[in-house]
Amino acid sequence: MSLKTIALAAAAAAVTLVSLPAAAQFAKSEDAIKYRQGSLFVIGQHFGRIGAMVNGKAPFDAKVAQENADLVASLAALPWTAFGPGTDKGAAHKAKPEAWTEQAKFNEHADKFKAEAVKLAAAAKTGNLDNLKAAFGPAASSCKACHDAYRSR
Amino acid sequence: MSLKTIALAAAAAAVTLVSLPAAAQFAKSEDAIKYRQGSLFVIGQHFGRIGAMVNGKAPFDAKVAQENADLVASLAALPWTAFGPGTDKGAAHKAKPEAWTEQAKFNEHADKFKAEAVKLAAAAKTGNLDNLKAAFGPAASSCKACHDAYRSR
Repeated sequence: MSLKTIALAAAAAAVTLVSLPAAAQFAKSEDAIKYRQGSLFVIGQHFGRIGAMVNGKAPFDAKVAQENADLVASLAALPWTAFGPGTDKGAAHKAKPEAWTEQAKFNEHADKFKAEAVKLAAAAKTGNLDNLKAAFGPAASSCKACHDAYRSR
Repeated sequence: MSLKTIALAAAAAAVTLVSLPAAAQFAKSEDAIKYRQGSLFVIGQHFGRIGAMVNGKAPFDAKVAQENADLVASLAALPWTAFGPGTDKGAAHKAKPEAWTEQAKFNEHADKFKAEAVKLAAAAKTGNLDNLKAAFGPAASSCKACHDAYRSR
């Protein structure tokens, strides 16, 4: 698959991403915390199913890979809307204070993941395991970079 | 909008639904519980944003309504994959034992909600508030019916 093909596929996938405003959309801080924890957990599960195929721990099934990657791409925009002002308190969570004090840098991480998720979905759409493997690594790295910087152990 | 138009739009929306197998996809029961709680919570938040517009508590914005309805329709298939055998234990949750002992009936509720979510997304796509209102009621009823039957207070 050429780079141009990948770029076109990624652009096609990108238009399906939602443009939900990041403004306060939660009745209370606890809701925002549950929302981001819930959406990140669901993303992690679907991302992990692709990872299992990429790492040879599950048989490669192009259709299943694409469904999971499409879900990850659809969900990738959600969690960040729930890190608004004041949502650092209200319930137990593992996000470090820097997620709020370094908001621009935090958002760069979020944008990086969203972009990688689009590329992953485009790679999955090709039905080729090598393409999926090539896109999975950078996507996983974008998860890890943000977790290392902004998630307490 | 004619019933035929609604039916066609619903059919178009339906093809975007994922066909994830309901088989055991979780490493442990606790993961399934977190997954279904997380996905249901995210669905509830987006469904609630549509409800606010339908009930006049938020200004109607056709684009926002459609984004939220599309998300609900995309997510509507997820929670039920996490009610597999053995997932009635493993972490605190509110699902009643009947969700496992009356599986066929429980699945009917899930299917009803999925169908209503598709109709809601189709209605939102028309950009017409009256269509949205007409589809919201039955969708909300499908949530309530299942909660009344299978969720502890």
